[in-house]
Amino acid sequence: MRNVVRCGLIGFGTVGKGVYQLLQENAHLIKLRTGIDVQIVTICDLRTDLVRREVSGITVTDNWRDLLEDDSIDTIIELIGGIEPAKTMITECMKKGKDVVTANKKLLAEDGDQVFDLANSGSAKLGFEASIGGGIPCVVSLKSGLVGNRVHTVMGILNGTTNYILTRMYDKAIPFDDALREAQDLGFAEADPTFDIEGHDAGHKIALLSMIAYNKKVHFSNVQVQGITRITLLDIMYAYEMGYVIKLLGISRKIGDEFDIRVQPTMLPFKHPLASVRDEFNGIMYDNDMTGPVTLYGKGAGGLPTASSVVSDIVQMAQKDNIYENAISLEGEINYMAPGKRKCRYYLRLYSEDKAGILARVAGVLGNYDISIASVMQQEVEGTYVPIVITTHGANEEGMMRSIGEINKFEFISGDVVVIPVEDFE
Amino acid sequence: MRNVVRCGLIGFGTVGKGVYQLLQENAHLIKLRTGIDVQIVTICDLRTDLVRREVSGITVTDNWRDLLEDDSIDTIIELIGGIEPAKTMITECMKKGKDVVTANKKLLAEDGDQVFDLANSGSAKLGFEASIGGGIPCVVSLKSGLVGNRVHTVMGILNGTTNYILTRMYDKAIPFDDALREAQDLGFAEADPTFDIEGHDAGHKIALLSMIAYNKKVHFSNVQVQGITRITLLDIMYAYEMGYVIKLLGISRKIGDEFDIRVQPTMLPFKHPLASVRDEFNGIMYDNDMTGPVTLYGKGAGGLPTASSVVSDIVQMAQKDNIYENAISLEGEINYMAPGKRKCRYYLRLYSEDKAGILARVAGVLGNYDISIASVMQQEVEGTYVPIVITTHGANEEGMMRSIGEINKFEFISGDVVVIPVEDFE
Repeated sequence: MRNVVRCGLIGFGTVGKGVYQLLQENAHLIKLRTGIDVQIVTICDLRTDLVRREVSGITVTDNWRDLLEDDSIDTIIELIGGIEPAKTMITECMKKGKDVVTANKKLLAEDGDQVFDLANSGSAKLGFEASIGGGIPCVVSLKSGLVGNRVHTVMGILNGTTNYILTRMYDKAIPFDDALREAQDLGFAEADPTFDIEGHDAGHKIALLSMIAYNKKVHFSNVQVQGITRITLLDIMYAYEMGYVIKLLGISRKIGDEFDIRVQPTMLPFKHPLASVRDEFNGIMYDNDMTGPVTLYGKGAGGLPTASSVVSDIVQMAQKDNIYENAISLEGEINYMAPGKRKCRYYLRLYSEDKAGILARVAGVLGNYDISIASVMQQEVEGTYVPIVITTHGANEEGMMRSIGEINKFEFISGDVVVIPVEDFE
Repeated sequence: MRNVVRCGLIGFGTVGKGVYQLLQENAHLIKLRTGIDVQIVTICDLRTDLVRREVSGITVTDNWRDLLEDDSIDTIIELIGGIEPAKTMITECMKKGKDVVTANKKLLAEDGDQVFDLANSGSAKLGFEASIGGGIPCVVSLKSGLVGNRVHTVMGILNGTTNYILTRMYDKAIPFDDALREAQDLGFAEADPTFDIEGHDAGHKIALLSMIAYNKKVHFSNVQVQGITRITLLDIMYAYEMGYVIKLLGISRKIGDEFDIRVQPTMLPFKHPLASVRDEFNGIMYDNDMTGPVTLYGKGAGGLPTASSVVSDIVQMAQKDNIYENAISLEGEINYMAPGKRKCRYYLRLYSEDKAGILARVAGVLGNYDISIASVMQQEVEGTYVPIVITTHGANEEGMMRSIGEINKFEFISGDVVVIPVEDFE
């Protein structure tokens, strides 16, 4: 155990400031609890004047190599995000034996091989609790708390922006665009929200959680990602009538020897542990051989919550002289399930002309692909086209996609059929 | 870090068997993840023949001193429960430098001083994740994941038996006795259920969680405990109509410099993170200065879930050479809030004769104690007595108890007034 941890902090944005504030307020508490004195000795940020106005007793620089060359710094906190220059900073520091704590999910999920290899080689330790689920201790729960379990499924609401939008659509019965605008006004969504609403952020996070759960490298490029832009208020309302909520889920599942890892809008029954995760909150469920389902939830973003996770990693790394903690690629390459092989229940919603024989033709196509219908709902409405909602029993994804391709071609259908997988819970 | 952990297991009941089975199935996985080889070398149980039939390659004894005297054993897993002989076993083993993992909440909460002092002195490490919340990693989340936080509140559904009973009463609209009998038939409640339904089990657990959260010793004798035997179906139904569920909560709260620690039936709004914790599941919420509320839930009992927590502690103790982890009494004695000082909202339900002026007299008593009424519900029913439901704004507990004492004396009241505190969530 190291009794003193001397940190170099790179990036004095929201989370960086949060780490500084947390240590100002609670460093004595951490020392009382663990015997470890966590100190920030240098902060690196291009806006040196701004930083100097906000901190005292800490060296401020705009050159990260000052941290690299300072042998008294044993731990680097990287909070600038993105691939470069973060990757160079992290790998150079690890090569010099400095432990690294990072919130950089993009780097780790898209281009993390070199960083993970350095961690596995024992050069230095790597902590990335802050990359996933803000202040929720989801990594330590999985790595330490559930260390004795084989994980079957990781499932999470991993992006606060999209969860806020879906919650507002549901609560206020407003369309996607209005909910997005409200999220932007409140600071829950970026001016360019693409990264969040297209599911990329959640994809990075489910890739990282999968690595820990299955002890294999998972690349973001192998995660099938679908966002929420095609979710309509109508589907949210139909889901509600049937006892479901629509959530953007990251799902990672071991099926036989294969792994199905994806991000997609999913219908969850009200009693599912993740169904009640609302607003900008995140929630993560691990389903394991020994414990059964274990769920965590809390604030998935923000300066102080994320700082809590940064500090948790720093303390744990100081308490352990163990390198295996980082070993997440020891069981060889992951075997991805081929797209389309997954089987699940589906919700389909289409707009059709209101005339006889239509349901028979749609059901006929589904039947050709061995898809059996569980329920049909068609309400009388005014207008040329009427909405028809169909739920299916367990169906093969490829068959479903092919049948939808055929149904979309019917001349009596308006627009594309909306397809949403349905997750059940016991 | 120790690469091999040699365990002596005392008590081959449900959890003991679970630990054995978990290691049979997943020891290789734990080694892959952490580099640590966890082995059971000796099992101590009075039923040696039974144990010998179920395990192989492990020494079996009925004398725990065989484990004490075996210097090759570095870790003791105590799973017999109760105060003696467990206390002697644990303290003797710790004095010899053996780390101890235990699920013995009763010992730690009622008579744990000597054990905690040994842990704090550095003689040996102590792990008790398995004492609280079965397979939910609630201790590691708090101790490591939230180490940088000052905890304001710990709140939990900590007893599966009572949560099962309350859930069944609610779901099936059956009275307490029927739900208890069903729980007993299914093995969720003991033949003598007193320990669970009177809240003692939850009281032990909230005492232990409070110790970790506040770094102070907390004795079970200082926890105000109230069980669920006075909760009626009628109150559950009224709660539902008002948007609440009744749960047996362990609540530990820092208010100024004082601590209010108790177990009591509590009304939670539907949207509260713990409201959706159903059946025999447990759920724990920590509300912290940096992260805000963080909630965990999962199976709160059972052989394999609890074994998962036992193994998690073993691995963490092997990874750390740090004794401060156990330091839970460094900030001096805890300052308990005087009973009655707490302020909260209340639900009151009384049976009264159906005549004029009654509400005025009841409200008059409440008013004398500065308790203001938030809502009143009185429905027309057949019979001599009608139920009246009152909710109050924030009220001082002592004033509430005194006013209830007066109201109970009114000749027009039948039975005692039911009083249930109401927790809100933002």
